[in-house]
Amino acid sequence: MPAPDSRAAVLALDATDPTASLRQRFALPAGIIYLDGNSLGPPLASTADRVQRAVRTEWGGELVRAWNSCGWIDLPARVAARIAPLIGADGDEVAVADSTSINIFKLLAAALALRPDRPVILSEEENFPTDLYVAQGLAELLGERAHLQLVPRSKLLRSLGDQTAVLMLTHVDFRSGELHDMSEITRAAHDAGAMMLWDLAHSAGAVPVDLTACAADFAVGCGYKYLNGGPGAASFAYVARRHHEGLRTPLTGWMGHRDPFAFATAYEGAQGCAPLQVGTPPILSLIALDEALELFSQTDVEVLRRKSVALTGLFIDLVDHRLPDQGFTLASPRDPARRGSQVSLSHPEAFAVMQALIARGVIGDFRSPDLLRFGFAPAYTRFTDVWDAVSVLEDIMNDRSWDRPEFRVRPRVT
Amino acid sequence: MPAPDSRAAVLALDATDPTASLRQRFALPAGIIYLDGNSLGPPLASTADRVQRAVRTEWGGELVRAWNSCGWIDLPARVAARIAPLIGADGDEVAVADSTSINIFKLLAAALALRPDRPVILSEEENFPTDLYVAQGLAELLGERAHLQLVPRSKLLRSLGDQTAVLMLTHVDFRSGELHDMSEITRAAHDAGAMMLWDLAHSAGAVPVDLTACAADFAVGCGYKYLNGGPGAASFAYVARRHHEGLRTPLTGWMGHRDPFAFATAYEGAQGCAPLQVGTPPILSLIALDEALELFSQTDVEVLRRKSVALTGLFIDLVDHRLPDQGFTLASPRDPARRGSQVSLSHPEAFAVMQALIARGVIGDFRSPDLLRFGFAPAYTRFTDVWDAVSVLEDIMNDRSWDRPEFRVRPRVT
Repeated sequence: MPAPDSRAAVLALDATDPTASLRQRFALPAGIIYLDGNSLGPPLASTADRVQRAVRTEWGGELVRAWNSCGWIDLPARVAARIAPLIGADGDEVAVADSTSINIFKLLAAALALRPDRPVILSEEENFPTDLYVAQGLAELLGERAHLQLVPRSKLLRSLGDQTAVLMLTHVDFRSGELHDMSEITRAAHDAGAMMLWDLAHSAGAVPVDLTACAADFAVGCGYKYLNGGPGAASFAYVARRHHEGLRTPLTGWMGHRDPFAFATAYEGAQGCAPLQVGTPPILSLIALDEALELFSQTDVEVLRRKSVALTGLFIDLVDHRLPDQGFTLASPRDPARRGSQVSLSHPEAFAVMQALIARGVIGDFRSPDLLRFGFAPAYTRFTDVWDAVSVLEDIMNDRSWDRPEFRVRPRVT
Repeated sequence: MPAPDSRAAVLALDATDPTASLRQRFALPAGIIYLDGNSLGPPLASTADRVQRAVRTEWGGELVRAWNSCGWIDLPARVAARIAPLIGADGDEVAVADSTSINIFKLLAAALALRPDRPVILSEEENFPTDLYVAQGLAELLGERAHLQLVPRSKLLRSLGDQTAVLMLTHVDFRSGELHDMSEITRAAHDAGAMMLWDLAHSAGAVPVDLTACAADFAVGCGYKYLNGGPGAASFAYVARRHHEGLRTPLTGWMGHRDPFAFATAYEGAQGCAPLQVGTPPILSLIALDEALELFSQTDVEVLRRKSVALTGLFIDLVDHRLPDQGFTLASPRDPARRGSQVSLSHPEAFAVMQALIARGVIGDFRSPDLLRFGFAPAYTRFTDVWDAVSVLEDIMNDRSWDRPEFRVRPRVT
């Protein structure tokens, strides 16, 4: 199919988009084309009032009674139950707590405990750094009992062996957007006698995942990217039901105790994956996440995935067609089946070009050393946004307006 | 000094209270006497709007740019700098991250790393359970290298020995409100060659603490009790500057990396206590905490402490005087120098009596098996609240209105 050659043709795609009405549920600022929902999703239009009400009416009105009267104590489980269908899990296989990093620590330790004679945590060099940092910290703590083996992606499967306790991978590569085949890799890990831990940070809410079908053991994911739960929203963690009995994680806090309000001296973990709860849950943050997840309860993730594939495909086609000689190289898979909900382009001036785009209201992000990263969250991104973003990019390249000193200044967060 | 014998006498105490104006900064519901700020502090009147604005303007308006443009990336450090003077620390010795439980895990591991030949984490049976659970989880993970030794309070100091790596105590006992002598105990720990970790959950914001003066090594504390940061607010953690060089905690995430946005494969911790940051910080929760802390930046903690002592003293005097034969026993120290900002009474029908009080709008809490717990947060509790609470308690005991079936029903959270 050739790239559309007019904005009108792209408008027609929006007109027939079955998910088009979802966009109005979001609070998106005027004049912005937001292609960074893979870093931080926007709030729903209703989130600000929901959180304000929670502060005023629940916290302020009920005070400590809100733990019971407003159901705060069950909120992590309710939020988990909303995430479960997005990742092919049952509600009681998911916990919502802490950050993705902290949850990786819990589950790597749980995996090592299930494979006590195997010291190796295997991952790829391309994995998201915090996943690797957490594994390094755990390995350093455990000395001889654990170490992190990092290999290039191409050598992953042949590096599985009888010393591998757990294979830890991120489903969608944060740089390239390349998808791992979860079924094939999980099977290979199991064939080698290893456990499989998936990081779904760049999948949940945009790329359908079926943890049950692929027989994964553990997974974690992020509440603030495609799930739109807000900056630093709580993370989710999955433990397959077959591992619930005897689940041991080293982060044992009162909220994971069988009976927290008995205030017993000895820890006894609750049933199921509830021991993944540690400290008092962050209620305001969970309420924002809960509000955002309501949208997914009314939305078919497969329909969102089809739109996501069409959005990323359109972007690639338009860049190919309209910017053939501007030094961009596609850094994401061309095959949509191997691509998440983002497209990355490499360019020698990636940093400055991205700053110029942001100055013109097209917000993507830069990833070192030379990537422009564009996320296409299907719930609120229009086909015309893709067209308009490429038009702005074309302008910027044609008039070299990226080539200014102010676009070379690195901010704290990129 | 005899107990005041009239509400008018108590009104005079409020009239001369130098901190009386602080109360109007809080959002407290009408008809409620709130004596459970030691469990969950109330919001400031400004918090609901501040959080709503953060969702609408910062998150919704700036989207991912807010990490730079709204200073989110530095928010944990700014909040930490506001907590520091309340605990006798410098701003760069405090980090705000995760939950109290998770921070205890980090600091216990850091303490064990500094005392590699000593396996014992020493604590008291009376300590808050989650502190003990975390130590148990860490000890189970480390096998021979660590174990938790629990002794009764009376045997603490003589249990310190050449195997003790770290002594972990909560400054204010969550049941009785009894204060430990931080200087004396820290000195004893150091004399035995052990590190000292203080949990300040029931101190910060109500009882002045001087970590520098008592030469503590590590401390943690809670954002949602006397600091009023909201349910599940982030916790703080303190590391004395002499331990910053080479600080090793096992929870190594990207936010504690020297250069998180370089996305390097190997972890290199940032300077100072910044490696206590792990995952992406919970911004909405930190904003609520920041708003609450602004109040303390204008308030002398020593003045608050004097009021706190007067409030708890008044409560004890009034209970002594007006309820001498109702089966109550004071479960807190009578000596104000040994008492935190709460008073606990034991009573055989404590649970039902507390439920009856709550039904009448006097909110304290129950702690198993027989304690009624009353927190007197000095920033918003009036002397007349104490008088009125005791009056309601007197009514309930005189007419035995606590003795109803509905007051025996245990909710999920007590």
